Amino acid sequence: MKICLIGAGRIGAVHAIAIAGEATTTLHSVVDLHPEAAEQLAKKYNAIALNLDQAFNNNEIDAFIIASSTATHADLIERCARAGKPVFCEKPIDLSLDRALSCAKVVKESGIVCMIGFNRRFDPHMVSLKNKVDANLIGSVQSLIINSHDPEPPSMEYIASSGGLFYDMMIHDFDMACWILKDTPSNIYVAATATNDDIASYGDVDTASVILTMKNGAIATIINGRQAAFGYDQRIEVFGQKGMLQVQNALEDNVVLSNANGINQAKAKYFFLERYEKAYHNELVHFMKSVQTGAKPSVDISDGVLALKIAEAAKQSFESGNPVNL
Amino acid sequence: MKICLIGAGRIGAVHAIAIAGEATTTLHSVVDLHPEAAEQLAKKYNAIALNLDQAFNNNEIDAFIIASSTATHADLIERCARAGKPVFCEKPIDLSLDRALSCAKVVKESGIVCMIGFNRRFDPHMVSLKNKVDANLIGSVQSLIINSHDPEPPSMEYIASSGGLFYDMMIHDFDMACWILKDTPSNIYVAATATNDDIASYGDVDTASVILTMKNGAIATIINGRQAAFGYDQRIEVFGQKGMLQVQNALEDNVVLSNANGINQAKAKYFFLERYEKAYHNELVHFMKSVQTGAKPSVDISDGVLALKIAEAAKQSFESGNPVNL
Amino acid sequence: MKICLIGAGRIGAVHAIAIAGEATTTLHSVVDLHPEAAEQLAKKYNAIALNLDQAFNNNEIDAFIIASSTATHADLIERCARAGKPVFCEKPIDLSLDRALSCAKVVKESGIVCMIGFNRRFDPHMVSLKNKVDANLIGSVQSLIINSHDPEPPSMEYIASSGGLFYDMMIHDFDMACWILKDTPSNIYVAATATNDDIASYGDVDTASVILTMKNGAIATIINGRQAAFGYDQRIEVFGQKGMLQVQNALEDNVVLSNANGINQAKAKYFFLERYEKAYHNELVHFMKSVQTGAKPSVDISDGVLALKIAEAAKQSFESGNPVNL
Amino acid sequence: MKICLIGAGRIGAVHAIAIAGEATTTLHSVVDLHPEAAEQLAKKYNAIALNLDQAFNNNEIDAFIIASSTATHADLIERCARAGKPVFCEKPIDLSLDRALSCAKVVKESGIVCMIGFNRRFDPHMVSLKNKVDANLIGSVQSLIINSHDPEPPSMEYIASSGGLFYDMMIHDFDMACWILKDTPSNIYVAATATNDDIASYGDVDTASVILTMKNGAIATIINGRQAAFGYDQRIEVFGQKGMLQVQNALEDNVVLSNANGINQAKAKYFFLERYEKAYHNELVHFMKSVQTGAKPSVDISDGVLALKIAEAAKQSFESGNPVNL
Repeated sequence: MKICLIGAGRIGAVHAIAIAGEATTTLHSVVDLHPEAAEQLAKKYNAIALNLDQAFNNNEIDAFIIASSTATHADLIERCARAGKPVFCEKPIDLSLDRALSCAKVVKESGIVCMIGFNRRFDPHMVSLKNKVDANLIGSVQSLIINSHDPEPPSMEYIASSGGLFYDMMIHDFDMACWILKDTPSNIYVAATATNDDIASYGDVDTASVILTMKNGAIATIINGRQAAFGYDQRIEVFGQKGMLQVQNALEDNVVLSNANGINQAKAKYFFLERYEKAYHNELVHFMKSVQTGAKPSVDISDGVLALKIAEAAKQSFESGNPVNL
Repeated sequence: MKICLIGAGRIGAVHAIAIAGEATTTLHSVVDLHPEAAEQLAKKYNAIALNLDQAFNNNEIDAFIIASSTATHADLIERCARAGKPVFCEKPIDLSLDRALSCAKVVKESGIVCMIGFNRRFDPHMVSLKNKVDANLIGSVQSLIINSHDPEPPSMEYIASSGGLFYDMMIHDFDMACWILKDTPSNIYVAATATNDDIASYGDVDTASVILTMKNGAIATIINGRQAAFGYDQRIEVFGQKGMLQVQNALEDNVVLSNANGINQAKAKYFFLERYEKAYHNELVHFMKSVQTGAKPSVDISDGVLALKIAEAAKQSFESGNPVNL
Repeated sequence: MKICLIGAGRIGAVHAIAIAGEATTTLHSVVDLHPEAAEQLAKKYNAIALNLDQAFNNNEIDAFIIASSTATHADLIERCARAGKPVFCEKPIDLSLDRALSCAKVVKESGIVCMIGFNRRFDPHMVSLKNKVDANLIGSVQSLIINSHDPEPPSMEYIASSGGLFYDMMIHDFDMACWILKDTPSNIYVAATATNDDIASYGDVDTASVILTMKNGAIATIINGRQAAFGYDQRIEVFGQKGMLQVQNALEDNVVLSNANGINQAKAKYFFLERYEKAYHNELVHFMKSVQTGAKPSVDISDGVLALKIAEAAKQSFESGNPVNL
Repeated sequence: MKICLIGAGRIGAVHAIAIAGEATTTLHSVVDLHPEAAEQLAKKYNAIALNLDQAFNNNEIDAFIIASSTATHADLIERCARAGKPVFCEKPIDLSLDRALSCAKVVKESGIVCMIGFNRRFDPHMVSLKNKVDANLIGSVQSLIINSHDPEPPSMEYIASSGGLFYDMMIHDFDMACWILKDTPSNIYVAATATNDDIASYGDVDTASVILTMKNGAIATIINGRQAAFGYDQRIEVFGQKGMLQVQNALEDNVVLSNANGINQAKAKYFFLERYEKAYHNELVHFMKSVQTGAKPSVDISDGVLALKIAEAAKQSFESGNPVNL
């Protein structure tokens, strides 16, 4: 399967590794606004650099992976739809819910395979937790808590165009909550602040606590922050009538140092590349299988639309100070 | 120091153990609505059973501990105030904020030592965390999360008169949040449900997620539940600019069984008596020292009033579905 | 029950606390070579200071606890035997196996209750592990590993008279191995060194690794050291056909600090007083019950003799460099 | 770099994955006594099946990886030496120390790169521990404990030809002890039994406890077993003057289930393939780099000889019941 990767940035490089590491996929070509970036990444994997038109006119390409900036996602997905090419696109579909909805309509009409990059659904630890919830090991679920902190704030350039914490970061947690609870929220309430002045200057926040009341009555609480001194904090806790399930942080190694200062373990794995290394690989394998078999991927554009809808409500709640119905 | 214990129930028995275990205090007498209950507990510690009038007329008694039902607290505190006797009273002062305020006024005018039973402040683990926060080990605090689940729901008799989850259970967490953050909330939002039909029939809830926005900007999230299959869940997490501090659950023992089912540890200690055994003892020692030295106890009636004020706002938020300003 | 405590040193003080803390026992008197030490400890618990003759002539005393230096143990036990008084004596009975055997004979003929202070058998964590082994949770036991490190070396004064690491420290582990495995060793091999020059100057060691081959074929490995930077290291691991059981170290508190240096927990509890606080209490309660009911204590003078026999063989193996049959 | 793999069994397949996963290596060909096995593995990675003569006559091959049965190792290494081809060979070199020594001589004279497969030296957790020991984080090392249990016994066919537990399994731990302590043993003592009757019938053991006294005085204790109900048990503990370093088991996932039975985590990763996945990859990368740069690999044939020498002494100690000098 020959894949064209659009976007040669940080996340594009992650996908390139996964594509190269998998026996049945080949990185065919790389497209980027900056041709040198495309060249450089392409060279590393014996691929070629193309511009967008060249890529969509190239009959050798079996599928597209979109890892370019958010503003380009919806247009590129639609272009794949029109070209009848399977597409995997990073979240979010767009910062505008309306635009995402119109894009989803085009996708639906085209019938193409369109998968959205909620990588955490493919993390072996998250999958193990999800399977145990589904196997009823903790009975009916009453509440869910997600703790997600990045190790350090992104660049201000990123902040400027990311859409803000709810669209860029918490959108993963919205998806996780709906996925694990097999439900959608009826209501959302947000409390958030910016402890970092630079982030505040963009109208964004870096610390947030959010409550989702789900339609079936379960309560999901999401805690997000842009900076954790001890690494990438990615914990989840599901509380049910018969017990509790948790995914704990993955540490850098299993070494314990006991000395006069106490009992010391390594930090949490640094960031998404390290923490979700297997998830990125498994996600790609899932996409490939969907393309090969034509089966609907387990996470598709409707999941992307749902998460975006919740992000929009989150922003409204933050701005109004009141809960928002969904 | 001769102590009269009012209330021979579950929590009264805990205090009796602490009084008897401490070298400088003696359980002088026990008062209870049910004289047989008072007799029985008194006999165990070579104390005498009295009725209320006998107790307040007995000059031998140096201090009172009130562990009777909530409805009696404010009256008994005031009686101690009028008698000029130091008093330790279990939380809450009353279910009515107005009544608590008038009681606090009487206490203040009397000048007696009046300590409210927020036992967790005296737990060695919580104290260690608090000291580390105060020593600036995690820098400025951005958020706080408290997970508190009882091992099983109380009797319906208890539910009927407890004032509900916010007044009876979460009031401890309101106090902890203010104590650890050295701050008071400006705003509270509550999402809560009753998963247990019996509890629902009393208009009470058993599952709640609450966000407190503190005046200095920190966000405190409190998760409460009436039933944890794995024991008494008492975790706390403070997140700051330079790191995170957590109190983990105390387990029944340190034994690990590794077998074909995995790696298995004991449950969390069953309930407050087991988990806060040392806290009850340390709390009593603190009260005794306050009585002996005349120093203001570290947790007094104003802390009881504050926690009650937040509980009242919590109930309003739950009933209205909207955040409530404090 | 009125108890006379012989020995007002470090371990004597521990027993005094346990005696005072238990409702049905009273510290009647304290005997020590240094009358001021006896006075001081006695005063603290409203007891009296006596000399040995006064103590053995005092009819009020119901039982003796011997916590004096090792050289006095056998004589004092025999004096209790002749006086028909129940006695609890710290390990070891004596540094000479012959002396211990003659003492055991006197005890047996007298019929008194005589318990030896292997406190670890009464530690709730060790008891939980032992119960699980006995309940066959790990099937037939194949091997046992004990890690025991003191937090810091004792004084050279102590080293000079302790009999050395095998008699003073590892004797606990010999007892634990026989108790948990319900077996005795047929063979012992010792490798040991002194990393501390002062300890070496007394002909003693501070680091030892010992293999006991038990009669039923199980292999017990004991690792001892006189200095652990992280506190009192008291771990045990039993390996069986169906799984493994471990007692982990008890830490000073349950607080976790996660920061740029990693994930940090408290040190292990400092030393035997902190780690075995409950064991000392439970041990005393067991002795009291034996005295009151006349039942043989679960650990008696024969266990003391057995552990001493193994210690003697350990010393022989260390000196010869060869395994020694038992 | 084109690699020929000799041996298409369990461990051969592991190397094939590593070769295929690495960008700069290609699996050129597979050799096996059973041509179908060679065919099958070769096909999976677009390689060809060859017989031995074809392989050694093929000029395209840059290096050999030997993963065939132990009896063939020394001959094949010498054939590589004569052909001037770099070779990576699984441990042990041979079951006879004499044969290994003569083989090492041939290798030395040829000057080829010859690396022995002590995979654990390339495990990131072991490397992290080793680096911390070398960085003096625990001061001078006093003792080392290695716990190594396979999840289940090998087939009796394997037992018949493996050379026994000391040559086949514990040889890894002999290498680890020398590597971590930068030292060699002066003395070894072995206690071992066969709890499994089938294993006993081959004169082999399945449970062993071994003490190595190292030349610099440190004591290394190795515990081995052929069956751990909870997965592949691979723990190591280094104890020094200033603290302790441990590698803990790697679990199947980070999920914790807390329920009425307690707090439950996943089993240890099943076996060497899962536990040492990264080690196999890193080992291959190290070999490749040695081949490319001509630098001596960090673990070479002399390490294989040393470990074999200790295994031989271990067998002698087991048979005689006495310690053996080295």
